Amino acid sequence: MIFYRVCIVGLGLMGGAIGMAARRRGSASRVIGVADSRETIEKAIAKGAVDDATLDMRAAVADADMVILCVPVRSIIAAAQAVLPACREGTIITDIGSSKSLIVRDVEQLILKQKSKAHFVGSHPITGSEKKGIEASETIQLEGANCVITPTPHTDNESYRKVDEFWKSLGLKTARLSPEEHDAVLARSSHVPHLLSPALVTIQTEKSLDLSGPGLRDMSRLAGSDPTMWTDIIDQNAVEVGKALKDLGQELITLAQEIDQLSRPGTPGAEAARERVFRFLADARQRYDKRYAAAIKKEDDEAAQDALLDEI
Amino acid sequence: MIFYRVCIVGLGLMGGAIGMAARRRGSASRVIGVADSRETIEKAIAKGAVDDATLDMRAAVADADMVILCVPVRSIIAAAQAVLPACREGTIITDIGSSKSLIVRDVEQLILKQKSKAHFVGSHPITGSEKKGIEASETIQLEGANCVITPTPHTDNESYRKVDEFWKSLGLKTARLSPEEHDAVLARSSHVPHLLSPALVTIQTEKSLDLSGPGLRDMSRLAGSDPTMWTDIIDQNAVEVGKALKDLGQELITLAQEIDQLSRPGTPGAEAARERVFRFLADARQRYDKRYAAAIKKEDDEAAQDALLDEI
Repeated sequence: MIFYRVCIVGLGLMGGAIGMAARRRGSASRVIGVADSRETIEKAIAKGAVDDATLDMRAAVADADMVILCVPVRSIIAAAQAVLPACREGTIITDIGSSKSLIVRDVEQLILKQKSKAHFVGSHPITGSEKKGIEASETIQLEGANCVITPTPHTDNESYRKVDEFWKSLGLKTARLSPEEHDAVLARSSHVPHLLSPALVTIQTEKSLDLSGPGLRDMSRLAGSDPTMWTDIIDQNAVEVGKALKDLGQELITLAQEIDQLSRPGTPGAEAARERVFRFLADARQRYDKRYAAAIKKEDDEAAQDALLDEI
Repeated sequence: MIFYRVCIVGLGLMGGAIGMAARRRGSASRVIGVADSRETIEKAIAKGAVDDATLDMRAAVADADMVILCVPVRSIIAAAQAVLPACREGTIITDIGSSKSLIVRDVEQLILKQKSKAHFVGSHPITGSEKKGIEASETIQLEGANCVITPTPHTDNESYRKVDEFWKSLGLKTARLSPEEHDAVLARSSHVPHLLSPALVTIQTEKSLDLSGPGLRDMSRLAGSDPTMWTDIIDQNAVEVGKALKDLGQELITLAQEIDQLSRPGTPGAEAARERVFRFLADARQRYDKRYAAAIKKEDDEAAQDALLDEI
């Protein structure tokens, strides 16, 4: 038991999932939720995401050892501003925002300005779903997910260690990056994909969407995400998203040139282009296999195990 | 029972899946497979994908009412060439190739040249997996998948009808398109995604790949596909893939401009860009929801049902 009393501000998809996991795994003696409606409070209690929940943020925070801000990125700074005056000395505040530079900078400034004795450590558990609300919290896979923690020169070491332990106690694998590094990394792995998936949906015709298969379905899942939330995330990380998008654009321009050559079969350029397209696909596949091989093997083994059990 | 004797040429991922489904659903009185190794024959028989299998294509084809070419796209025309002399009058030949214009044109020419009395009807069941081989045939979802059938002015109507009935008997939803329409549609829904997914993997750094979450995993699944097979498919449909890739490139250029504006917060352009990014995401989401809403609701209902059963 690392944190006696955890307060989760915001009982949506992620707040609900974190609450459930913290209670199930004994990562907290008590989980108190802060919501903005009676309805959400009832849902959170009913599904065991919290021991109790309240509309009264100040009271909930005053009684907490750790406060986790689980509100959308656009509201994290405002939530920190509201939370800070209610914190006792040494209270640890963390968040789960998908962008970090802006949030960490602004919250650290707030702490200085308010002369708060609370400690802030930015976090980002890298998991989620295109779905929304505490109703869908069960779909969130925390176990085995990555969680980036983003300390700065101002970060209290002991608080960093406790935040790290907390996420690990929920089954996440933690990594330490500066907020700026985090934003550069996530622009590529998450923010650009959240633009690419809708772009792919946008170029579909009615027919191509209707007659599509599992490939397009997987590739378009992120297009089902909340547009407001993602506009905010991309807005907060626009510089890095722009860079990653430029790199992707360059890849696609090169590919378009190869495809152009391929469309002239029998010409000397066509065979060379074929070889380059193959190489491009083979290299990407190698990276895919390397990254996901262990997970794929585990799934296949489990499927084989299930098949065996079915036979018995 | 529509087809008495079905012969599947090529017992890989798809051939195996089609054989299993045809036998399970009684779509054939007898399924004979043609493979290129004893090992595959044994695997196919062991998993019930065929009633029997052989290395002797001519004998298997001579005895069939319908022949399904389940070899990779680059080998379909050669397979048709080898199969045709062995066919009886009225034998129906179909295929499962992911590109259609070139294949349908060439096979129709072969039939004319060989003065064959067999009938060819092009098909494309739109399902698959990044995995390979008959070992993974269980991962193929035929039930509910789309299947495009691509008749031409030369197509025998009765054969078209029988091919249509056959796929329907396996649980697929059939659609009729010309080979050219098929290739334009699939370029968008499948072939470009098979380039986009590897392109997204290509722009990842070691760190962004390591620290990624479920979003990137779904978006990069197609990068795990067989590079030879996909070089061939894209090669055969290069003109249409080029067009679709150009449309996607245009979307990304527009997006990059918006992101560029976003990265200058406080400027008059930034707020308008935010609105346009939101609109882009919201429109794509609406199309996503419309296409997948029924499937998503079904999954959620099943999950709720499972949860209920767990409680009882």
